[in-house]
Amino acid sequence: MYFQMGWGDLGIFGNPSGGSPNLDKMGRDGMVLTDAYSANPVCSPSRAAILTGRLPVRNGIYTTNAPARNAIARQTIVGGISDDEILLPELLQKAGYRNKIVGKWHLGQQPQYLPLKHGFHEWFGAPNCHFGPFDDVSMPNIPVYHDEYMIGRYYEEFPINHDTGESNLTQMYIEEALNFISKEEGPFFLCWTPDASHRPLYASKEFLQKSNRGLYGDAVMELDSGVGRILKKLVDLKIDNNTFVFFTSDNGAALHSKINAGINGPFLCGKETTFEGGMREPTIAWWPGKIKPGQMSQQPVSLMDIFTTVLKLANVEPPTDRIIDGINLLPVLLQNEHIDRPLFYYRGDEMMAVRYGLYKAHYWTWTNSISEYMKGTDYCPGECVANVTTHERTNHTASPILFHLGSDPGEKYPIGNDKEEYKTAMTTIDKIVQDHKAKMKRGTPQLNTCDRAVMNWAPPGCEKIGKCLRIPPSDPKPCVWVK
Amino acid sequence: MYFQMGWGDLGIFGNPSGGSPNLDKMGRDGMVLTDAYSANPVCSPSRAAILTGRLPVRNGIYTTNAPARNAIARQTIVGGISDDEILLPELLQKAGYRNKIVGKWHLGQQPQYLPLKHGFHEWFGAPNCHFGPFDDVSMPNIPVYHDEYMIGRYYEEFPINHDTGESNLTQMYIEEALNFISKEEGPFFLCWTPDASHRPLYASKEFLQKSNRGLYGDAVMELDSGVGRILKKLVDLKIDNNTFVFFTSDNGAALHSKINAGINGPFLCGKETTFEGGMREPTIAWWPGKIKPGQMSQQPVSLMDIFTTVLKLANVEPPTDRIIDGINLLPVLLQNEHIDRPLFYYRGDEMMAVRYGLYKAHYWTWTNSISEYMKGTDYCPGECVANVTTHERTNHTASPILFHLGSDPGEKYPIGNDKEEYKTAMTTIDKIVQDHKAKMKRGTPQLNTCDRAVMNWAPPGCEKIGKCLRIPPSDPKPCVWVK
Repeated sequence: MYFQMGWGDLGIFGNPSGGSPNLDKMGRDGMVLTDAYSANPVCSPSRAAILTGRLPVRNGIYTTNAPARNAIARQTIVGGISDDEILLPELLQKAGYRNKIVGKWHLGQQPQYLPLKHGFHEWFGAPNCHFGPFDDVSMPNIPVYHDEYMIGRYYEEFPINHDTGESNLTQMYIEEALNFISKEEGPFFLCWTPDASHRPLYASKEFLQKSNRGLYGDAVMELDSGVGRILKKLVDLKIDNNTFVFFTSDNGAALHSKINAGINGPFLCGKETTFEGGMREPTIAWWPGKIKPGQMSQQPVSLMDIFTTVLKLANVEPPTDRIIDGINLLPVLLQNEHIDRPLFYYRGDEMMAVRYGLYKAHYWTWTNSISEYMKGTDYCPGECVANVTTHERTNHTASPILFHLGSDPGEKYPIGNDKEEYKTAMTTIDKIVQDHKAKMKRGTPQLNTCDRAVMNWAPPGCEKIGKCLRIPPSDPKPCVWVK
Repeated sequence: MYFQMGWGDLGIFGNPSGGSPNLDKMGRDGMVLTDAYSANPVCSPSRAAILTGRLPVRNGIYTTNAPARNAIARQTIVGGISDDEILLPELLQKAGYRNKIVGKWHLGQQPQYLPLKHGFHEWFGAPNCHFGPFDDVSMPNIPVYHDEYMIGRYYEEFPINHDTGESNLTQMYIEEALNFISKEEGPFFLCWTPDASHRPLYASKEFLQKSNRGLYGDAVMELDSGVGRILKKLVDLKIDNNTFVFFTSDNGAALHSKINAGINGPFLCGKETTFEGGMREPTIAWWPGKIKPGQMSQQPVSLMDIFTTVLKLANVEPPTDRIIDGINLLPVLLQNEHIDRPLFYYRGDEMMAVRYGLYKAHYWTWTNSISEYMKGTDYCPGECVANVTTHERTNHTASPILFHLGSDPGEKYPIGNDKEEYKTAMTTIDKIVQDHKAKMKRGTPQLNTCDRAVMNWAPPGCEKIGKCLRIPPSDPKPCVWVK
């Protein structure tokens, strides 16, 4: 399960609002992973990494149009997840699993990239973010799919009312999950990834104004209630002891959305950045009878570990013909062991930072360009750490900025590069980086080319429901990504 | 129980380090109070308010030497807690309670101000902060008392090694607490307030380098282990169902101490300020069989409520001849009810801000003076909110800066004063403030006059152990407080 949420958005991760009783209980009944990271600070690449177990620069969900550019699978994107990539559900299929994804896909909206072409048996959700409403002329509204066919569009058959904030979508996503779990008799893999809590915000009537923190909080509360209902369904069906549930977020809270955007706890900055606030995710592993309750682990975790861990549980060997970045977390989850491993913080095509042990070295720093910032887009509102939250893409490779995340989780106090501690830590980290770069084989970047013709004008199934729109002439161009 | 700690320093309040397993368990087994506030952002006034149930401007532990000046009972202070104030242990004494304070007193070090003169039967600890070492000529080392007599001094009989960070003090404070609990047969009131986690940092050998966050984390871990041992003692003695335990901190983490200073979670700034980071405290109420486990309350709590709540439990009427600011929290703790009440954020003699419901209005803002800031003292490192984290003492009374702490706990996004929401909230809050100010009767400020002659040269008992020092001639002057 994952949605967009900040590390500090749940009670059990220090959110003061009391708006997540079910996830808090999930945490108390399972293992809280305090040091879990997405592979990227924006949705598409993060999601691609979860399902492939590989960094976005390997699996192709990134752009090389400009250095360190965040990019996502917006609907003009020509590319998508490559057939050369092996997704978790493809492998689970071979082991007899039935696979369903509920919610946002975000790995390409052209037909060849959709979930049912990449290992999922079922899908209920949309290929892109629920942005809109659009006019269906200059821009089509995003389709909602049931399996391989579209069954309507956001803001049309699937309304979201921006004025009231009301939409029933999360309830639909909850029902889809519950029904799937109820009907499955064999092993199943459910990827429950509703788009709520991502902008534009919405909640169903029952949850509107229910939280004490605005519409964002309402959305979180509704998702939380969904988690509660899903876990209860597992318990009611008496399959909880046989079901591994992993909750996380695909990137940090989007602080540039200003108020009503989520909270990244004590961490610096938010979505779009490679500071802790952009990539450290509220993460819980739950498995009654297997994972002991009340645990909190400081194991450095990557969400790519889901790939390797789930394969291990399903007794399926991971691919051996390529580098898999995820590791098997079972020793951590079941025996509370600690596994030494580095973590790489990528933004677009650039390795920005590395964590090893409790040290994090920034080889590059960047928030956004001063011009975007002057226009009001601030990835780090209210935060200003000299030489760190830079508005220039700043190269520190000659002398990386080093933080100790244990005593300085907020990345405020760089360790002086004249200190013995610095030299010792950087000697190790530099070696790790050299090794990582030497072995790096980059995938073909999928987020480089945009074309209005590939938008969701006439998705599969549109003809059945009379929802096909006129496709404009093809005119592929390099995508422009915000700086 | 209270020490200096930030809201975000415990796992259950979103600290990622895993260094507080006992307090986390206390929270899981009790009620976490997310919205609990000290009465002041520095130690002495905060502590005076806890024990009197009254704001420092009423009980006298403040200064009028300059506006909005933070002041504490440092050892040159001539004043202290007034005999006119009625302290919680004085009242409990009448109900047959045996009262002990373990740790820092901080309400005046002249003999007439010490704990045994104000309701405590026993004391083990010191009258002032454990600053030092001093030379005992220009400045005496702080004495450690056993009941009414000093038994030694910090850095002499009670060593703290600044080089290694080692001191056995917290262990002594733990033992004192455990022994007191073990020997009491009747009702007792234990105020366990070790000075560790306040600078200068220390921990005993067993805890040095045990945390993953430096000496501060080691100190927190040792205190946490003490809490665990105290709670276990209550359980072992089978008096846990009959013992109300309240854990909190007397002010926010001291961010101006830079790294290794604690974390205030998602809140703005730290100790010394009236932003949330300075006054919101990690707070837990624990009472097996009475307070249901796993609860999280958003009740606005003041630490002054301890006074009124404990009196209620002891069946003692609070004084009726004066305003008591604390309220009885039992409906919150036992029935999870919500009580509407305003909270006032004072700094020195100035009411800086007010919270009512989820709205907080800043009538004044100030961090510290630009000259102190330029010298390196920063109460809000890495944080910068325009017009909010001001380095001038800034009067917003004509149009207070309003935040909604639900959707904006970090105090980053002021609500526009042209908004209907602003006008509605401020109409209510302005009335509350007028009423508060109309009824305010200020106590005689005790922290105005300093005199080297009143320092701890020759505390009671010094002659018995040959630790009396030469008292310099009296030369009282107005105390100078940092801006």
